[in-house]
Amino acid sequence: MSKKIGIIGAGTAGLKLGLHLLKNGVEVKLFTDRRPEEYAGMRLLNTVAHHHVTVEREDKLGVNHWPDVGYKGHYYYIGTPEPLQFYGDLVAPSRAVDYRIYQPQLMQDFIDRGGDIEYGQIAHEDLDAIADEFDLLVVCTGKGPFGQMFTHEPAYSPFDRPQRALCVGLFKGIREPETRALTMYFSPGHGEMIEIPTLSFNGMVNALVIENHIGGDLEILAKTKYDDDPKAFIALLLEKLQKHYPTCYERIDLEEFDLANGPLDILQGGVTPTVRNSYAKLPNGKIAVALGDVQAVVDPVLGQGANMASYAAIILGEEIVANDVLDERFMEKVDARRRDRVLSATRWTNYMLSSLATLDPNLLQFIGAVSQNPKLADEFTENFNFPEKQWDCFSSPERVQAWIQARLGTPANDAEELVAAE
Amino acid sequence: MSKKIGIIGAGTAGLKLGLHLLKNGVEVKLFTDRRPEEYAGMRLLNTVAHHHVTVEREDKLGVNHWPDVGYKGHYYYIGTPEPLQFYGDLVAPSRAVDYRIYQPQLMQDFIDRGGDIEYGQIAHEDLDAIADEFDLLVVCTGKGPFGQMFTHEPAYSPFDRPQRALCVGLFKGIREPETRALTMYFSPGHGEMIEIPTLSFNGMVNALVIENHIGGDLEILAKTKYDDDPKAFIALLLEKLQKHYPTCYERIDLEEFDLANGPLDILQGGVTPTVRNSYAKLPNGKIAVALGDVQAVVDPVLGQGANMASYAAIILGEEIVANDVLDERFMEKVDARRRDRVLSATRWTNYMLSSLATLDPNLLQFIGAVSQNPKLADEFTENFNFPEKQWDCFSSPERVQAWIQARLGTPANDAEELVAAE
Repeated sequence: MSKKIGIIGAGTAGLKLGLHLLKNGVEVKLFTDRRPEEYAGMRLLNTVAHHHVTVEREDKLGVNHWPDVGYKGHYYYIGTPEPLQFYGDLVAPSRAVDYRIYQPQLMQDFIDRGGDIEYGQIAHEDLDAIADEFDLLVVCTGKGPFGQMFTHEPAYSPFDRPQRALCVGLFKGIREPETRALTMYFSPGHGEMIEIPTLSFNGMVNALVIENHIGGDLEILAKTKYDDDPKAFIALLLEKLQKHYPTCYERIDLEEFDLANGPLDILQGGVTPTVRNSYAKLPNGKIAVALGDVQAVVDPVLGQGANMASYAAIILGEEIVANDVLDERFMEKVDARRRDRVLSATRWTNYMLSSLATLDPNLLQFIGAVSQNPKLADEFTENFNFPEKQWDCFSSPERVQAWIQARLGTPANDAEELVAAE
Repeated sequence: MSKKIGIIGAGTAGLKLGLHLLKNGVEVKLFTDRRPEEYAGMRLLNTVAHHHVTVEREDKLGVNHWPDVGYKGHYYYIGTPEPLQFYGDLVAPSRAVDYRIYQPQLMQDFIDRGGDIEYGQIAHEDLDAIADEFDLLVVCTGKGPFGQMFTHEPAYSPFDRPQRALCVGLFKGIREPETRALTMYFSPGHGEMIEIPTLSFNGMVNALVIENHIGGDLEILAKTKYDDDPKAFIALLLEKLQKHYPTCYERIDLEEFDLANGPLDILQGGVTPTVRNSYAKLPNGKIAVALGDVQAVVDPVLGQGANMASYAAIILGEEIVANDVLDERFMEKVDARRRDRVLSATRWTNYMLSSLATLDPNLLQFIGAVSQNPKLADEFTENFNFPEKQWDCFSSPERVQAWIQARLGTPANDAEELVAAE
């Protein structure tokens, strides 16, 4: 049976879904207010690492244009009085590309393969006509009248405000460590920082995702404007990096260190983690599916957002291909497949936001065990690909203990040492 | 980590779970009020066909003691004025064995492999001690204090009374049709009958599952007692079979036809289809899981009950083995795997109860299409193994139409003819 799918929003979820449907001969139209050529002149959109499971989806779609820039694992730096440092390997490389390059490239792939894109804002009065044109609408952007149709799921939306004051930018002048890898830094009581080797317009640079606790020593980084005084901002940032994230600071060339491409390479603000209803009924009785950020918004601290959006997009695409009728039974099948990973990614991220802020003894025990056992560090690192496995570990104190004990054969006993070292 | 599992009730679900856990080295104890040697003298327990997916589970557990008595497909007889008859093949044989043979055999297997069984009634005052003895309780019988812990799920429990007046028995004197097969008979406005080739104490006999519409010509079969006057009962039954299910009647040896082993081979009554909460919290905070009939009771018209119980039992067993902590996260994982098939079996069965009673035009269109296309009849028959695929077809009128159209390439058009033939 012929099906006609409308996708509102051309982010990573909408693009992957569109490419999957095109590949399977399903008629599809993308709606977006940005043309491919506009991206290069825009402010940084975000900083996103694609885990290797996401890269593998791009391989299958034939849109992995950047096979050689991947990173191989995660370094971890825990800024306790006696700092902990360790490394975990990934099974296959993950990869980060500036979305101002990535998104227009996938849009171009979509166009080159015959995909239809309609440009422009969607107004409230367009809703009925668009709803009638398609058998199913997929809503990937909260902007506009479609995004407003989805209500919060309170059970999975525990916060009413951002949990971190974010300062996110692309920087040049940071030397790569021995192995090309992402680095996660923890400064107890103050924040976290993720350093991501990222391909941007002038080659490899580093994203710094600086996650600052509200009221901590680092919060000022989210409030000081680069544009007001670039040199002063960079001086402030260097001072904070030296104090809180010294193993990053050590690799900085003080002469070269700055935003990678210019003043548009920085974003400041915050994200309120939110899960919304999986779908809504349109006035004409058809289904509108929430996908990507419309379904679930997470803080970037664990890099889950784009990866769960990509995962859910391909599942949705497969179910659109497999189902002749796109109704509530269809949504049962979609949700049965996507729900655990999407919810696990949000719950694990929310757990880490809270537990890193409160220095939860269970998390400290976990970090203690993982820091001393390379096999455990590898497993934890690889499981960034599989947030449901992380949630299997972190969803209760008993599970954290059982995870450690199953791997080490003894009850965890490092927490008190770590806490004592505070 | 060592785990200790208590199973309340030794029906097909409890036995399969117990055998799976034994096989995987998990400590398990079964609670039942019946010893294996008591079964042979009991009234017929039920009439159950094990679909081939269920037989395959028994092969894996090493408890398929009856490999040679299977049947190969379903005959269908629709008693419209111009009767429809057709046949559908199964991919592999399904099989029915009298549960008075089957259950004590699996109990014996469990005992022979070192399984622990505690016999006796469980009283309310035993609840706390039993709850404390185990890491997880699995409740497979509604009898006793544990069965009462589970509340109805109203969304999936649409009926407050039985939808059929049942008369179920094991009979001798019915000649097998050309192919050993189950036969489903439909007498519009009056009832359905399922004839199941079944192994009982004296070899192969036939179960007749006679499902009578409330207020119809056949309801009397559920109300007339065999024991009051066996000859009169058999005469009444023969009269009704001749009128409503003539292709069964034709194969009856009138001299021999009677209950197969004696007066205990008949059951009369009714079943209220019910879905209950998947799990409950015990007073000590541990989990009690609903399994088998405690989770979902269905009318026997489609033979789904024991098969979904077996399916859910093995999934539960696999998740018990895979999870070190048997908590709410564990139940999320169990339900993510078992829920669609269990709910689909109940929803499809409830749909058929209603649609066969009202002669829903969509169902008549479906039957019309399937009766004329052996490939469709094969698919429908095989899908008794996969109730979620049946629900993919029957969950809405649009889905029934799409199912037919996807297979025949044209919209269904037989319904009006069938309805006109009424």
